[in-house]
Amino acid sequence: MDLHQRLQWRYATKKMDPARKVPEAAIDRIVEAARLAPTSSGLQPFEIIVVTNAEVRERIRAIAWNQAQVTEGSHLLVFAAWDHYTPERINHMFDLTNEVRGFRNEGWENYRQMLLNSYPQRTPEVNFQHAARQAYIGLSAALIAAAYEEVDATPMEGFDPEALDGILDLRARGLRSVAILPVGYRQAEGDWLVNLPKVRRPKEQFVSRVD
Amino acid sequence: MDLHQRLQWRYATKKMDPARKVPEAAIDRIVEAARLAPTSSGLQPFEIIVVTNAEVRERIRAIAWNQAQVTEGSHLLVFAAWDHYTPERINHMFDLTNEVRGFRNEGWENYRQMLLNSYPQRTPEVNFQHAARQAYIGLSAALIAAAYEEVDATPMEGFDPEALDGILDLRARGLRSVAILPVGYRQAEGDWLVNLPKVRRPKEQFVSRVD
Repeated sequence: MDLHQRLQWRYATKKMDPARKVPEAAIDRIVEAARLAPTSSGLQPFEIIVVTNAEVRERIRAIAWNQAQVTEGSHLLVFAAWDHYTPERINHMFDLTNEVRGFRNEGWENYRQMLLNSYPQRTPEVNFQHAARQAYIGLSAALIAAAYEEVDATPMEGFDPEALDGILDLRARGLRSVAILPVGYRQAEGDWLVNLPKVRRPKEQFVSRVD
Repeated sequence: MDLHQRLQWRYATKKMDPARKVPEAAIDRIVEAARLAPTSSGLQPFEIIVVTNAEVRERIRAIAWNQAQVTEGSHLLVFAAWDHYTPERINHMFDLTNEVRGFRNEGWENYRQMLLNSYPQRTPEVNFQHAARQAYIGLSAALIAAAYEEVDATPMEGFDPEALDGILDLRARGLRSVAILPVGYRQAEGDWLVNLPKVRRPKEQFVSRVD
C-alpha cells in the first residue's frame, strides 16, 4: 500500500478489540515517527506519554466522554505540549545540537539569541498555542506511522485537558495535554463507521492555484 | 525506504535548485495526502493555495525574511485555516457526508446540532486557533508525502501572516495563513544543512510510560 492507500485504510476507529495488544515494537515505531517529525526551529516542544495502566485509562475515559477506545485499545498515547518556551528549554535544544554536530556556529548562535530574546517574553498562552501546533505535526506523523503498522488509531480532542493534566500530573512537568491517540485493533462488528466511505471535501473545494 | 527512512531523508532544505520543477503529478499527490488527513470532527477547516506565479512568490519572499526557497522551489504551498467555524461551514460538511453516504443518521444529526450549538458561539480567535491545529495535521501529511515523492519541502512559519493574507486576498475567503511549504529539489552545493546530522531529543527525553 502506498501512502494514500494507508490514509484511505485508516479511519477514526470507533470499536477496538480489547483482547488484542499492539506489539511494543510497533508502539516504538509510532512514537519514533513523531520524534523524527519536524517542528518549528527544531525545538520539539512536546512529549508523548504512553499509558497502558488500566486504572489510569479508566480515569481518563471518564473525562473523555466515556469514549470506549481509551480503554479498549491496548495503548493510549497522550500528546502534551510545553506550557511555555523558557530559556532553559531553548538552550537545551541548541546545546544538544552543538553537541551532536560537534561544533558551534556563529549563525546558529545568533539564531539562539534571537529566540531567547523573543520567545520567553511572549505570554505562556501564546507559546503554548504555538507548541500545540507543533504537537499536531507529531500527532499526524504518529497516525500515519500507525497506518503503516496496520494498527488502528483514533485521534481525539474530546476530553477535558485540565482533568487529564491532573491525572497524569503534567503541569508539574511544564506540559499541557492537547490530543490523545488510543491505538489498538479494530473490531469490525460493533463499529458503525468501519464500512462507511471516508468523506472529504472534493479537491476543487480544498486546493486553489495562483499560476 | 520505510517511513522512518523517509523522515530521516527529509530535512528543512535551505537551498533549492531553481532550474528543477516538481512534476504536477507529484504536487497533486502531496496535496492529496493533506486532503485525506484526519481533522477534528472531519471538518477539514483549512485549504491549500499552490502558488507558482513568480511575481507573487517574489512578494511573498519579501514578507518571509527573504528566505530563498520561497522563489527557488518550483511550487509554494500555503496552508490557510478557517478564520471561524460558521453554521454554513459546519452544515456543508455534514450535508456532504449525508450526500456521500446516502443516508441521514440520527446520531450524526445530533452531533451536527451539538457543533452548531457550540462552535459558532466561540470567538473567531478560539476557532481559528483550533482550525490552525488541524491545518498542521495536513502540513505534516504533506511533508511526509513529499518525502515519499523524493521531493524536498521546507515547512516555514517565518513570514508575516497578515501580509501574506493580503497578498493572496485570503481574508475575503474567510482564511488566514498559518504555514507555508516551498517544494522543490535540494541543491546540495550551497546548502549548509544538507550534510549535518538531524538533531532530535533522545527517546528518554521525549516519551514516558504509565504502565
